[in-house]
Amino acid sequence: MAAEVDVLTDLLRENDIDALKARMSHTPDRSLARLLRQLGRHDVRTIFQLLPAERADGLFQILDGEVRVDLLTELSQAPAARLFALLDPDDRAWLCQRLPKDVWLPLLDRLTPDSREATERLMAYPQDSTGRAMSPHVIGVDVDQLAGAALERVRQASPRTETIYMLPVIDGHDVVVGVVSLRRLVTSDPQAAVADLMKTPAVVMRADQHQEEAARAVREAQLIAAPVVDESGRLVGVLTVDDAMRILSDVDDEDAARSTGSSPLRRSYLATSVFDLMRSRIGWLLILIIAATLTVNVLDYFEDTLAEVVTLALFVPLLIGTGGNAGSQSATMVVRAMAVGDIQTRDLRRVVRREVSTGLMLGLTLAAFGLLPAAWFAGWSIALVVAVSLVTICVLATGVGSTIPLLARRFGFDPAVVSAPFISTVVDATGLIVYFVTARIVLGIG
Amino acid sequence: MAAEVDVLTDLLRENDIDALKARMSHTPDRSLARLLRQLGRHDVRTIFQLLPAERADGLFQILDGEVRVDLLTELSQAPAARLFALLDPDDRAWLCQRLPKDVWLPLLDRLTPDSREATERLMAYPQDSTGRAMSPHVIGVDVDQLAGAALERVRQASPRTETIYMLPVIDGHDVVVGVVSLRRLVTSDPQAAVADLMKTPAVVMRADQHQEEAARAVREAQLIAAPVVDESGRLVGVLTVDDAMRILSDVDDEDAARSTGSSPLRRSYLATSVFDLMRSRIGWLLILIIAATLTVNVLDYFEDTLAEVVTLALFVPLLIGTGGNAGSQSATMVVRAMAVGDIQTRDLRRVVRREVSTGLMLGLTLAAFGLLPAAWFAGWSIALVVAVSLVTICVLATGVGSTIPLLARRFGFDPAVVSAPFISTVVDATGLIVYFVTARIVLGIG
Repeated sequence: MAAEVDVLTDLLRENDIDALKARMSHTPDRSLARLLRQLGRHDVRTIFQLLPAERADGLFQILDGEVRVDLLTELSQAPAARLFALLDPDDRAWLCQRLPKDVWLPLLDRLTPDSREATERLMAYPQDSTGRAMSPHVIGVDVDQLAGAALERVRQASPRTETIYMLPVIDGHDVVVGVVSLRRLVTSDPQAAVADLMKTPAVVMRADQHQEEAARAVREAQLIAAPVVDESGRLVGVLTVDDAMRILSDVDDEDAARSTGSSPLRRSYLATSVFDLMRSRIGWLLILIIAATLTVNVLDYFEDTLAEVVTLALFVPLLIGTGGNAGSQSATMVVRAMAVGDIQTRDLRRVVRREVSTGLMLGLTLAAFGLLPAAWFAGWSIALVVAVSLVTICVLATGVGSTIPLLARRFGFDPAVVSAPFISTVVDATGLIVYFVTARIVLGIG
Repeated sequence: MAAEVDVLTDLLRENDIDALKARMSHTPDRSLARLLRQLGRHDVRTIFQLLPAERADGLFQILDGEVRVDLLTELSQAPAARLFALLDPDDRAWLCQRLPKDVWLPLLDRLTPDSREATERLMAYPQDSTGRAMSPHVIGVDVDQLAGAALERVRQASPRTETIYMLPVIDGHDVVVGVVSLRRLVTSDPQAAVADLMKTPAVVMRADQHQEEAARAVREAQLIAAPVVDESGRLVGVLTVDDAMRILSDVDDEDAARSTGSSPLRRSYLATSVFDLMRSRIGWLLILIIAATLTVNVLDYFEDTLAEVVTLALFVPLLIGTGGNAGSQSATMVVRAMAVGDIQTRDLRRVVRREVSTGLMLGLTLAAFGLLPAAWFAGWSIALVVAVSLVTICVLATGVGSTIPLLARRFGFDPAVVSAPFISTVVDATGLIVYFVTARIVLGIG
């Protein structure tokens, strides 16, 4: 694929229009959509301008959101408005959130009144709410209908309707009272009452609920789609499994990037400039290096001890490294267990007790394995200092590693983001203090 | 939820059968299924034995795989066989893979010949193949049929059929030639030919394909389900979006655990004993601490330099910490970009060039910010040593951090697993060498 990108980039540089057209006519839509993620915004525009209108329309509908943002920014108003009108209201609302106002306002103005109204309704929901991610194109089946009539209603459904496989069942006030699957409707006697076929209570999502929470609920209950309702329980849209997967995959991307203190990339890796790569990472590296000056101060405080027994310095990287590893094992396990709902913030004491016990066993095991080699290398007294410090540092690291994610959650921060850097800072500094205090006692110095 | 678990555990300890029964009758199935993940296997069995048979059957079908494993191991043959028979063949095949042979063989023997045959057919596929994860209960629609007749065939479908929303279209030899959605069938003229309604070419999965790859393909193409075919293209099963999400979520769990060198937990966090927690982590900690002895040796080699200028020791944790952070940023970004297909192993040179350029900019920025404070703290010459080392270490770390995941993939290892520990070992040791060599040159010692 990367090779394909190079070919395209070369042809774009050479402005070889005929070769470009020929090449693209042989590339399937999905492959082309993937390739576009790796190109700069000018190149994306050039490619779109070379495509036949019909193909461009089809391709635009399967593009990644961020590529659409670039393309709509680059194109002039008329072609941009035509592409914009092809999208579903939820996709349009998503784009408006990301485009500058002077780009999206004219696009919205050129829509038909209906489409415009549907889009604006979604944009009224808070950012990251389920209302922003749902599709408003949903049909409800009347609870008083018979299966045959309901099926007939589904048959007439507009092609815009997001899904017809999960059908919300509504009462006279549009309130969702159950759901019935198309499968149930199709395989039932047409004379059966919808009220008898539907499943109650329906698993519904609230439009003002956080979209990540709704997406997890859809995945856990293995639904094809879930009705979305307003605060009075009235049907306002549908969240499909596709939407749920996209939301969760975006969340994973962000978490993965943030866990090492990078900002998530807006575009694919190879389409991001080295300068942007640098910018996405420098912030956290600076914060971490400032935090790390704590270790410089701790070591400075113990400089006399260090000067007296330089050999102590040899084990510093090993000790803080082990602390960091043990701490991040704890943190990862706790973050994961929180994400899948196995533990809550109120389990703090219990989790920390378990982690600290684990840390004690880990430390004792490591110390037992390390004592002899360390003694052989640096003598018994230093080996003893290292062994005692290993145990204490493992206990500290697992304690801190499990506490910080739970506290972060309690105070409303994303545990995956803040945990790793804080843990290593705290564990490094306290671990060094433990090490040198132990050394002073055991070696009788300082 | 944890509070609920405590109540249940207490009642189980007190053997208060009536209170247990009352409590469970008020707990919805999904909540009970979640609670069972957190209990030990004996408790799970006790709870199942207390439930009315019909409720137990329903509950068993929504239990997590690992809880099913525990339960079937604990129950006696007759009730275990009854529950086992309720499952779909793919779930049965999954269980057989995890149960000891003396447990699953009798269970298989007690199935009806049909069910047994269906299960054994799936078990014949290689581990982690799509064939193991698919459902064999699929109906194909004849390419020569009319829409009305095809719809009638779907109506007659057994309730076991996994999905009827995506219908594979097959020729006279069972070869998949397209797919048609139930939506298309329902909304079309009954006299239309299936051949005109179907989508070609169908996105199909191969039964011998790795299941993670198939699951990603289902997600990327936003399919409700995909037909699974044998090596001749004949329909043998269906992989639904539910299956795909379960596979990908399992993979994520494993990756998250393994990235810090833990083995993935078999059961939920609170249901795992402290000893098992310890066992899941000690292996990597030992390997990492052995690797970390490399840093001890490097420092030992430079002990004279260190003895002469003890102040050098103060910056050791800060320098290797920054190297570790910069390296893991690179590694995370590269692993992620590989996972979503943005980069391939053949992009190695290009990626490393980009990362090293990023590292150079990061290092220069950090050095620029750090020079003055370091000079104020430790004098100009040591500040210069630290600054030069920061730049070199950032370049090293980003280079190593991007190379190792790509090399790991090329040699068939999981990059998420091996990257972090290797990177920190290599970066720590080489970073220290750079630091002390620079010190010797700048300070004119050694």
